[in-house]
Amino acid sequence: YTIAALPGDGIGPEIMESGLTLLETLGKKFHHEFNVTVYPFGGAGIDETGDPIPPQTIKGCSEADAILLAAIGGPKWEKAEKTPEDGLLQLRKTLGLFSNIRPIAVSDSIAHLSPLKTERVKGTDFIVVRELTGGLYFGQPKHWNDEEATDTLFYKKSEIDRIVRQAFDIAMTRSKKLTSVDKANVLASSKLWRKTVNEIATEYPEVTVDHLYVDAASMKIIQDPTSFDVIVTENMFGDILSDEASVITGSLGMLPSGSHAVSGPSLYEPIHGSAPDIAGKNIANPMSMILSVAMMLRQSFQLHEEADALEKAASEVMDAGFLTADLGGTTTTTAFTEQVKAILE
Amino acid sequence: YTIAALPGDGIGPEIMESGLTLLETLGKKFHHEFNVTVYPFGGAGIDETGDPIPPQTIKGCSEADAILLAAIGGPKWEKAEKTPEDGLLQLRKTLGLFSNIRPIAVSDSIAHLSPLKTERVKGTDFIVVRELTGGLYFGQPKHWNDEEATDTLFYKKSEIDRIVRQAFDIAMTRSKKLTSVDKANVLASSKLWRKTVNEIATEYPEVTVDHLYVDAASMKIIQDPTSFDVIVTENMFGDILSDEASVITGSLGMLPSGSHAVSGPSLYEPIHGSAPDIAGKNIANPMSMILSVAMMLRQSFQLHEEADALEKAASEVMDAGFLTADLGGTTTTTAFTEQVKAILE
Ligand SMILES: CC(C)[C@H](C(=O)O)[C@@H](O)C(=O)O
Ligand SMILES: CC(C)[C@H](C(=O)O)[C@@H](O)C(=O)O
Repeated sequence: YTIAALPGDGIGPEIMESGLTLLETLGKKFHHEFNVTVYPFGGAGIDETGDPIPPQTIKGCSEADAILLAAIGGPKWEKAEKTPEDGLLQLRKTLGLFSNIRPIAVSDSIAHLSPLKTERVKGTDFIVVRELTGGLYFGQPKHWNDEEATDTLFYKKSEIDRIVRQAFDIAMTRSKKLTSVDKANVLASSKLWRKTVNEIATEYPEVTVDHLYVDAASMKIIQDPTSFDVIVTENMFGDILSDEASVITGSLGMLPSGSHAVSGPSLYEPIHGSAPDIAGKNIANPMSMILSVAMMLRQSFQLHEEADALEKAASEVMDAGFLTADLGGTTTTTAFTEQVKAILE
Repeated sequence: YTIAALPGDGIGPEIMESGLTLLETLGKKFHHEFNVTVYPFGGAGIDETGDPIPPQTIKGCSEADAILLAAIGGPKWEKAEKTPEDGLLQLRKTLGLFSNIRPIAVSDSIAHLSPLKTERVKGTDFIVVRELTGGLYFGQPKHWNDEEATDTLFYKKSEIDRIVRQAFDIAMTRSKKLTSVDKANVLASSKLWRKTVNEIATEYPEVTVDHLYVDAASMKIIQDPTSFDVIVTENMFGDILSDEASVITGSLGMLPSGSHAVSGPSLYEPIHGSAPDIAGKNIANPMSMILSVAMMLRQSFQLHEEADALEKAASEVMDAGFLTADLGGTTTTTAFTEQVKAILE
């Protein structure tokens, strides 16, 4: 198993170290060889090579079986000609990572940490399927000068088709309830989106399909989060709604995500950012990175037993009261990792 | 004072009646003549004339001193060639209503109704300033067919300039804290937006300016709503974020909004929709309409005493325990209105 690891910026290197340590432990225990190569990416890429995504990083990622990304960005590189974020967008586009899967789940034991009232959020368990290589992020023309600016929200039907099918397939493995989010009362692209969803729906008669306008969806995520099963939406709406959904869990530091292409390696990463304010302090919660590793083991390598073992060990450590600062505890990143490692060994 | 009233659809006519009844009461009490003409609009416009915004409605609105709109839309007209929403967009564009002002406030007495934990939301008091006639809503090209779809997010600097200035002016009357929301790490239009905000900021040295990416803003509205004072953003982001913000108050039925042009009449309306499911049942909360009337009195007619009297009477009625179903009570729309009327008389 060849893995490209992109530690990136801020707390990225710390949590990546945690993830890779446990991956190594799992490798020994289950007798797998994980060939991990670390590549410069994001701000670290700019500092090392002048480019947030240098050629060796693209090459290494393309040839890997899976990619682990920790986090990128920070004030230091905000004015760079090519920013860490530009690097991330280029990576997504180059590898064709069109499908971003973000599970949003609130475990009963941490429901009290949610900004929402506990009884409202308890039992929340849904998945946001976000289109990741189209829409406003990449549409042309896209330019600005001192007088005016233009971005383009462009979708081909085939791009909508493949992400919507993915969402239906995921819904089939769950409660068979799909919520498609658009703004079909205003946007031409949403009209094509909605039509496509309705067409594909006829192929999945078991799945109940709901359409919500994006403004209504932003309300319902707060008002009735337990009502969702699978949400599918375009790139920009998915960016906003998946982040909104992540905070209702009260545990931003515990959410992994996976991005997939038609073929080629998938990319796994925490959904939170690089948190420059707490970087280097050994206090970041490595759970989201650990769960991203588990997601990779399961989805890219079909190593279900290994993924289960890792998730189980990590949640045992949490249940034993080892909590990082974001969850109200005092456990350090490395101490948490050592505890999980000890259980695995 | 000439007023164009657009009752529209769903619960629209019921709450409009409440607003107009109280306006008449105020007129008698304070010796003003409010000349109200009701025009067909939205689904009601389609039913009556085949057009959601017939010529007499446009003419009546253009010539009025102010416009009151209740609510539009519903499943009945979703497949219309020109939908109620199309009519609303045309009205905004025709009258040049570029600036949509939505106050989001949580009064202590109803903070417990919020889906957020009470201690987190208590004291929330901010204003969303949304650009209303540009961006993805109106940019050209905008078209779709069975193969592909395009929307265009276009802004002229002058359009950004005028809405941002409005937001700064509002911030000057409040806590002098402005949060500009964009997606400058991805969108060209957001880069021009951010640059323009920073330029205008130099003319308002007293105002503290913050920039937030839209995904981060969608999180912070839930995590830390009391931290905001004035939020300014473009049309599509404003649609999503203002609706998200409205539900954290727990009282969607109590929020008014105002839309303003460079010159000509302003439009006042509840921020909620037409709620077809409870239409005709005399159970809708008329508060948002009543507060929209108060907003009109204050902002379009400078009738501050009258607006105060109306707001005070309405909140006395609520404090006395007359609550509609959305707030857990059993008071009807008309009964609530009669109570407010009695106090005013
Ligand atoms: C960093 C940024 C470009 C990115 C996005 O908007 O997609 C991030 O917010 C995300 O959600 O992965
Ligand atoms: C009805 C719709 C076109 C409208 C909008 O998106 O602007 C509504 O959601 C609003 O916020 O006033």
